[in-house]
Amino acid sequence: MKCETMEQALQKLQEYQQTMSAYNHAIGVLYLDATTAAPSDSWEGRGKTMEILSKITYKLQTSPDVAEMLEVLEKNADALTAVQKRQAEVIRKGYDQTFRIPAEEYVAYNVLCNDAGAVWEKAKNENDFASFAPYLEKIVRFNRKFAGYYNPQMAPYDALLNEYEEGMNTQTLDAFFAQLRSILVPLIAKVQTAEQIDDGFLYRHYPVEVQRKFSDYLMEVMGMDRKHCGIAETEHPFTTNFNNKDVRITTHYHEDNLVSSMFSVIHEGGHALYELGADEKYNYTVLSGGVSMGIHESQSRFYENIIGRSEAFVHAIFPKVKELFPKQMADVDETMFYRAINKAEPSLIRTEADELTYALHVMVRYEIEKQLIGGTLEVKDVPAEWARLYKEYLGVDVPDDARGCLQDSHWSGGMMGYFPSYALGSAYGPQMLSKMEEDLGDIWADVAKGDLSRVTLWLKEKIHTHASFIKPGELFKQVCGEFDAKFYTDYLTEKYTKLYHL
Amino acid sequence: MKCETMEQALQKLQEYQQTMSAYNHAIGVLYLDATTAAPSDSWEGRGKTMEILSKITYKLQTSPDVAEMLEVLEKNADALTAVQKRQAEVIRKGYDQTFRIPAEEYVAYNVLCNDAGAVWEKAKNENDFASFAPYLEKIVRFNRKFAGYYNPQMAPYDALLNEYEEGMNTQTLDAFFAQLRSILVPLIAKVQTAEQIDDGFLYRHYPVEVQRKFSDYLMEVMGMDRKHCGIAETEHPFTTNFNNKDVRITTHYHEDNLVSSMFSVIHEGGHALYELGADEKYNYTVLSGGVSMGIHESQSRFYENIIGRSEAFVHAIFPKVKELFPKQMADVDETMFYRAINKAEPSLIRTEADELTYALHVMVRYEIEKQLIGGTLEVKDVPAEWARLYKEYLGVDVPDDARGCLQDSHWSGGMMGYFPSYALGSAYGPQMLSKMEEDLGDIWADVAKGDLSRVTLWLKEKIHTHASFIKPGELFKQVCGEFDAKFYTDYLTEKYTKLYHL
Repeated sequence: MKCETMEQALQKLQEYQQTMSAYNHAIGVLYLDATTAAPSDSWEGRGKTMEILSKITYKLQTSPDVAEMLEVLEKNADALTAVQKRQAEVIRKGYDQTFRIPAEEYVAYNVLCNDAGAVWEKAKNENDFASFAPYLEKIVRFNRKFAGYYNPQMAPYDALLNEYEEGMNTQTLDAFFAQLRSILVPLIAKVQTAEQIDDGFLYRHYPVEVQRKFSDYLMEVMGMDRKHCGIAETEHPFTTNFNNKDVRITTHYHEDNLVSSMFSVIHEGGHALYELGADEKYNYTVLSGGVSMGIHESQSRFYENIIGRSEAFVHAIFPKVKELFPKQMADVDETMFYRAINKAEPSLIRTEADELTYALHVMVRYEIEKQLIGGTLEVKDVPAEWARLYKEYLGVDVPDDARGCLQDSHWSGGMMGYFPSYALGSAYGPQMLSKMEEDLGDIWADVAKGDLSRVTLWLKEKIHTHASFIKPGELFKQVCGEFDAKFYTDYLTEKYTKLYHL
Repeated sequence: MKCETMEQALQKLQEYQQTMSAYNHAIGVLYLDATTAAPSDSWEGRGKTMEILSKITYKLQTSPDVAEMLEVLEKNADALTAVQKRQAEVIRKGYDQTFRIPAEEYVAYNVLCNDAGAVWEKAKNENDFASFAPYLEKIVRFNRKFAGYYNPQMAPYDALLNEYEEGMNTQTLDAFFAQLRSILVPLIAKVQTAEQIDDGFLYRHYPVEVQRKFSDYLMEVMGMDRKHCGIAETEHPFTTNFNNKDVRITTHYHEDNLVSSMFSVIHEGGHALYELGADEKYNYTVLSGGVSMGIHESQSRFYENIIGRSEAFVHAIFPKVKELFPKQMADVDETMFYRAINKAEPSLIRTEADELTYALHVMVRYEIEKQLIGGTLEVKDVPAEWARLYKEYLGVDVPDDARGCLQDSHWSGGMMGYFPSYALGSAYGPQMLSKMEEDLGDIWADVAKGDLSRVTLWLKEKIHTHASFIKPGELFKQVCGEFDAKFYTDYLTEKYTKLYHL
């Protein structure tokens, strides 16, 4: 299609976004099916289909048509609405990045990451870092190079950070993590001197059937519209969205663990509410869906920790817990339950970490990534640096690489610069809470009644509705003002001081 | 891509088929998700995605590239392998058909069928044929016209039949149905004079949880490889396949009905074994998957009725039935169970019909379709003709259109000429059985032990492995010789004479 006039360009803009949305929808459903329903040995055909569809979308994204369209739109930027302007900007960013990566490097990188995934899994199972190291080296080299393609004006690690959190940089993160470290490291040390909380009853026998009912209940309390939000079961829980009327969360049930699925449902529920709350005018455009990993995690962790692990929320749901699990909870009261789900203990595995120690796990990865991309750390030295940082931040000894630097899949999948979003998301929450309380007054009486409607509506109006229209940094500033990690450290200090009677 | 040399054409042939397979896979997963997992109000976005992907595949199918490729291949037909020749033939058929339908008629027809589906559903619920009649009239007119596009050399209804069963025609079907009618109508009348079988215990309370386990067991007995075949739950059971390594069946559980899901699992299992048994060289080509509706139904109904409702099969599975449902089956023995699942009774609803009366339900639809397309019956007269034929063939009075000519969704979806495949499939089975017994000797001792391996292997080698490579008529002839409905009527006569002590 020729694209010379503004009218043609605007037509193309709409068609292009709808087409890409359709492909993304299809690829998303293939992934959802693969992880929740597909028979175990059916990956081969799916891989072929995904490869073909990916090639088609790559071709669409880098077609001369798109370049032509962008040029016309940019030349007539004054005639664009704010939404159209932002759409063009997002498409331009994707176009330039994809276009700058030579096709053969793009393909080689995808092949590498695909292979690295299998190698990493084996290396983790066999505690064999040496076998993964050559792959990690190549991934680091590729990322350093790609950083230059992404944004040649930025320092490489900053360019990578920007892929996941537009506007973020090392300077901000260094200050953020330094602040966390100075408050959290001593706080954690203090918690360890206090009497530890007993949470053994959370690991009694909890039948999967009943846990499924509990998930339904939690989704109801969270006000998730089941007509537009499904739940499925998978190995590693995630949320996926096709548009603001079709969002899916997933969870995994363990019969000897009540809290694993409970908090995964609340966490993924937070992601889902973000997607469900987007204005429908962004559907089938590049602005659909949450704007960044950091903002997304701020929503999931807001519900999981700030709401889900609060005294008020426990008060609301505990009668249901008792009703569903009368035997398992026979000797447990509300306070015991509240304390147990908040038990803090320095540990080795990030995904199992508690609210207090979580950010320090992330910080270890940040420091290592920064050095790897910066060239001041060699891949072979990662295990030693990992052990050193875990000792320094969390006070724990890393017994092996399986429970050390091989625990996460991110690097093997090529994701470098992604981890900080987890900590940022955690830190955004308390500052949002403070703003929310300014606007709404006391929210905890509502929460204690199991009524999250005012909370969710506030988040929806301030954040969810904008989907990807406003850049993450600007969005946060618009809602909360200047980012200040003090809200986060204050929140944790207050919560854990009280909880552990420090 | 230019396509001038034979080398280019063969390259294009492979790429084209792989691309189409990828789209079909994606569209298939979207449909599977829609019917098994998607939240209830998520159809809007999916519809949009399906529409976009359908338009893209329509464009691919009718592109000048394809015509060019076909011309080169056809000019060099002698240099093609048998498989390539058949691929070119299938693609040519699709190309010519799609190309002959003017794009605006194609779109109008899709819109019509989409609207008709909703109108039909409402009409059925409200027993209001008049509201559906104008849609059916348009659908009949479109089909008459499309028949000319499909194959201008054939009588319109023959051309439609050929869409679902290549090589079938009215002459063959008239003779087939006449033969059925002459044997089955008196046989059914005779059954009705005999003492009726009590099957009340099949409609006791059967918890869904336990029925799910029963389904797993049945799939195991059928030798379905769960690593390549999944099961999901849906409203109207169906089977879908993405390639021979990834097939899904679906079922629906009713707590007051043991046999509904039991026989849907065995029926869909038969479809699935067909797909799983295809030679993998046909994956990602137009020859993947079963060759026709009739052959497909022959496999599903072979397992459902000839195997699944046999004394030997009941002998094999009844201990498990007793184990899973000890209370419900306390007063039931193997013979009672066998007789109950074979109870025959003329009724109104095709999908609930027993093995004996089933083909007569199909015959009613065949007679009506033939007259509608032939122009000898007006849409407004369908209800009266429906009632007349049900009385004549099955001896039952049709109380209303909801339980009459509005019961099936096929016509509202635009499918005319599809129904006969159901009866053909049923009739193919006994002739295949006869051939199988010639080759293998007694199969029933195996079946009585729950060992279907020889049965399935025979069907795999004779039928499944060929996927869509051999045309249905030729395939049947190759396996069984000339089609003769006498195998079917003999089989039913013998079975029901014995069952009802006639």
